[in-house]
Amino acid sequence: MARGFLIPIGGAEEKLRDAKILRRFASIAGGEDARLVIIPTASRLDDTAQRYEEIFREFGVQTVDSLNFVERADCQREDWLEILRRATGVFMTGGNQLRLSTTIGGSPVADLLRERHREESLHVAGTSAGASFMAEHMIAGGEEGSTPRSDMVTLVPGLGLTHSMIVDQHFRQRDRLGRLLTSISYNPRPIGIGLDEDTAAFMSPDRTIEVVGSGAITVVDPSDMEFSSMDSARPHDPVSLINIRLHVLVDGGTFDLETRVARAAAQPSPTP
Amino acid sequence: MARGFLIPIGGAEEKLRDAKILRRFASIAGGEDARLVIIPTASRLDDTAQRYEEIFREFGVQTVDSLNFVERADCQREDWLEILRRATGVFMTGGNQLRLSTTIGGSPVADLLRERHREESLHVAGTSAGASFMAEHMIAGGEEGSTPRSDMVTLVPGLGLTHSMIVDQHFRQRDRLGRLLTSISYNPRPIGIGLDEDTAAFMSPDRTIEVVGSGAITVVDPSDMEFSSMDSARPHDPVSLINIRLHVLVDGGTFDLETRVARAAAQPSPTP
Repeated sequence: MARGFLIPIGGAEEKLRDAKILRRFASIAGGEDARLVIIPTASRLDDTAQRYEEIFREFGVQTVDSLNFVERADCQREDWLEILRRATGVFMTGGNQLRLSTTIGGSPVADLLRERHREESLHVAGTSAGASFMAEHMIAGGEEGSTPRSDMVTLVPGLGLTHSMIVDQHFRQRDRLGRLLTSISYNPRPIGIGLDEDTAAFMSPDRTIEVVGSGAITVVDPSDMEFSSMDSARPHDPVSLINIRLHVLVDGGTFDLETRVARAAAQPSPTP
Repeated sequence: MARGFLIPIGGAEEKLRDAKILRRFASIAGGEDARLVIIPTASRLDDTAQRYEEIFREFGVQTVDSLNFVERADCQREDWLEILRRATGVFMTGGNQLRLSTTIGGSPVADLLRERHREESLHVAGTSAGASFMAEHMIAGGEEGSTPRSDMVTLVPGLGLTHSMIVDQHFRQRDRLGRLLTSISYNPRPIGIGLDEDTAAFMSPDRTIEVVGSGAITVVDPSDMEFSSMDSARPHDPVSLINIRLHVLVDGGTFDLETRVARAAAQPSPTP
């Protein structure tokens, strides 16, 4: 039993010049020997899967398949499940995360992804909508702004690859700190991870996150939260939160989900 | 490793004449030898815990403690955690489920309840707000009506004792079919369980639910759902769902969460 990498990406990742994030994902999944599956279900565009296929083939990956689950019945196709059983890495594209959850949720595809990620080191990456869908609790939508307010975010069941975090994307570009704070104000069990565009959180099997990309990751850690007023907030009220820890991490920075310790790339290691 | 019973109750359970539900919970937890813990955190009333204490003592239960976690710091109290470590049954009262999730969520109390329920047969019952809090996905609030509509329900992270169901309570009394259907329309992984008042779902360690009480349980099973329009619904739109299976079960009726088979008490067993 060995967990795979979990790689949520904030959307709009660089695909041409320096495709650092996509290249690193392909490398972790086996490089030239990787067997990648693209799931373009979230997207309404016809060429989304093909575009990623071409990128991964340019990196030298030999085996790249696209499985476009459009209807729930597609999630029962034995030939497609067989391809997923052999995959070393799965990449879910952007688009609308509710397309992913309504189409794949509760299906044999969802069960297989959870099981193979947990027990057979299947690495799962997703960008934008694909990133949001990964965790047990998924942000389906919400409002902009930096102050948490009740009714600001819609949380729904996601794919369930992790309970440790709630992921938000296009984070700085769409002013989403408020809805991420709102997401953790109901129940501070998961931490909040806000991903800027072209920025990814590479979460390793030992549950350390490493930042890769040109933007930042905002970590909202409620481990020591003393108080949330969400239980008494009326609709649209601002919500009071006491003692949230916040980190902004850039390329090379890390966050250990077990110890809840953040470290910048340039920071010297502590002397033992 | 042995799971305990999970017992969500729809609120307003009979406490005087024929306290069938509470009596059965006490019996499962060990009868006179049970060590019960009441958690009145959801309630704003001062005498909630005491009332249940008296009822359980009348049944002959010798050891009944009340742990009123009011602030998050209370969830760190070692003397209270020690009482929880010895409990055979936990009862969470009604009130406001967000009081439970904001106070207990992500704390050592939540971790201990999950662990002891999963591995040491700790039986957990909850009524009304206490019932809603139990599962991984908790209904925090919503609107009345029988047709599912987008934005009709607020789902947030709950205690996480089960992923198999989303629980709603005061079901018939408050016209909540619409919000239960909305809850499963995002991602049909969990089934929906609507509990009338004075009605409980006794979920056994082998994952069979048995109905106990004077009302009904409405089971909304999306196992064969073919379509949900939630991904394209605009705010307040009605949502289209194709092929949801619905059961209404009364006292003695059962539902097997593994096979998804429902059976009425009066129904003859199938010939093998």
